[in-house]
Amino acid sequence: MAIGEIVGVAPGTTFASRRELYDAGVHRQLQAGIVGSATTGAEPIVLSGGYVDDEDYGSEVIYTGHGGRNPLTGRQIADQTFIRQNQALVTSCLQGLPVRVVRGAEHRSSHSPATGYQYDGLYRVESYWHSVGRDGFSICRFRLVSENELATRGAESTPVRVATTVLRVVRDTALSKRVKHIHEFCCQVCGTRLECEGGWYAEAAHIRPLGSPHNGPDTLDNILCLCPNHHVLFDNGGFTIDDDLTLVGIEGRLVASHDHPISRENLSYHRSISGMGGSSRRE
Amino acid sequence: MAIGEIVGVAPGTTFASRRELYDAGVHRQLQAGIVGSATTGAEPIVLSGGYVDDEDYGSEVIYTGHGGRNPLTGRQIADQTFIRQNQALVTSCLQGLPVRVVRGAEHRSSHSPATGYQYDGLYRVESYWHSVGRDGFSICRFRLVSENELATRGAESTPVRVATTVLRVVRDTALSKRVKHIHEFCCQVCGTRLECEGGWYAEAAHIRPLGSPHNGPDTLDNILCLCPNHHVLFDNGGFTIDDDLTLVGIEGRLVASHDHPISRENLSYHRSISGMGGSSRRE
Repeated sequence: MAIGEIVGVAPGTTFASRRELYDAGVHRQLQAGIVGSATTGAEPIVLSGGYVDDEDYGSEVIYTGHGGRNPLTGRQIADQTFIRQNQALVTSCLQGLPVRVVRGAEHRSSHSPATGYQYDGLYRVESYWHSVGRDGFSICRFRLVSENELATRGAESTPVRVATTVLRVVRDTALSKRVKHIHEFCCQVCGTRLECEGGWYAEAAHIRPLGSPHNGPDTLDNILCLCPNHHVLFDNGGFTIDDDLTLVGIEGRLVASHDHPISRENLSYHRSISGMGGSSRRE
Repeated sequence: MAIGEIVGVAPGTTFASRRELYDAGVHRQLQAGIVGSATTGAEPIVLSGGYVDDEDYGSEVIYTGHGGRNPLTGRQIADQTFIRQNQALVTSCLQGLPVRVVRGAEHRSSHSPATGYQYDGLYRVESYWHSVGRDGFSICRFRLVSENELATRGAESTPVRVATTVLRVVRDTALSKRVKHIHEFCCQVCGTRLECEGGWYAEAAHIRPLGSPHNGPDTLDNILCLCPNHHVLFDNGGFTIDDDLTLVGIEGRLVASHDHPISRENLSYHRSISGMGGSSRRE
């Protein structure tokens, strides 16, 4: 198994066939789009036009998970879940592992090669969530961002604290600061307040995530005050929240405050992407 | 109060005197090196040669806190603690707020202006810790890194996952991965294992921090498996660990494993920088 770069294979290298990709060690599976396991993470993925829901913006790819397709028609005929190859991409996300991205000519985006396959360098799995695909079934989605893009983005949004294995950045906007002060830095899920020397620490978590494709608003009613643990769980399918503020997936109820309205619409959106109820084709 | 950039004052702007700095709104205090409060964070700091322990590497500054000096001799005559202006810099650290940095000619580093004062742009407080100064007393230390430097560093160490208010990066090295697997992703302090959809999440924390001035080693016996909450507390003076693995600052005992030796020397170092016992001039 090989995670990360393959020695001697530079980004931009092209290959005539899946067999050549295989022999070069870039993608050691002749059929599957994802190679990897839940233990090691995903090694490479191939974008080859198989899934109608893939979105390719070059340095950013919204990738559809594996499974649930009719092999003859290519149509989605069942729900996808985060198991097998999809779970490998989850592991890559949770452990911050790089994933090689290969584009095939059949992928037919402006970023694809004219013929054959092209190795396009390392990407990170930034997040994963549930969605409803064009064929009406639940699909697994992943946002992959190229490492080059991440470097650039770092340059734009410089609020960065760096540690070697974990990097945590908090730039308090006026709104996130307000949410933390309303709750006096106590987690709205567990009540924990981290007492550091000289101050308290809490994190501001967006209910409907900011940025494409979620496009959540940066408003007070879309922000929660959470401890780092519950922030990780909230962002990665560990739990979600019902309209009556009951927690789903873990025990308990969200602590509310009169000064802090919570958008029910955004809670519903979070439930849908966490795959725990909310808006789905079955409603 | 003004945090961040001052409209119309570009980095590199020089000022003849503290009075001019004051009138421009860059540093609205004529004497103190730090302006700010525990609530709002530090606005600006002035490097003016007052503290013998300051270290200036240009884009990175190891800054000494306020207090404990004899105003006549400038020598340290008492311990410093994280209160008042020092606490303002802690708030800047915990909330990720930018701090303006001004260098004075008297600071006498290669980065100082020949005369007067120079505004050198925005910095982040990356970490804070206790240390023993040249005069033998305990001092408060802060690492400030320029936002430009952080952008560059982001480009070098690209393993970055980005969220808008919090950015958490985990790049599993072989060692951090091993530590997590030994403990099966359970926090060595509280036993918590974060169950995300499709996988577990834990963080690898260095006991003696990597990088100057701590220069801790990247070895198995210098890494702990912690939940994000205890990682934040461990890195920010919330608790430390005794040689017998009893926790100091919070209740409990570190969970040990035969497969995971812990360096007592590095624990002692962590106690010293957390200001809770360990190596100090009084030993």
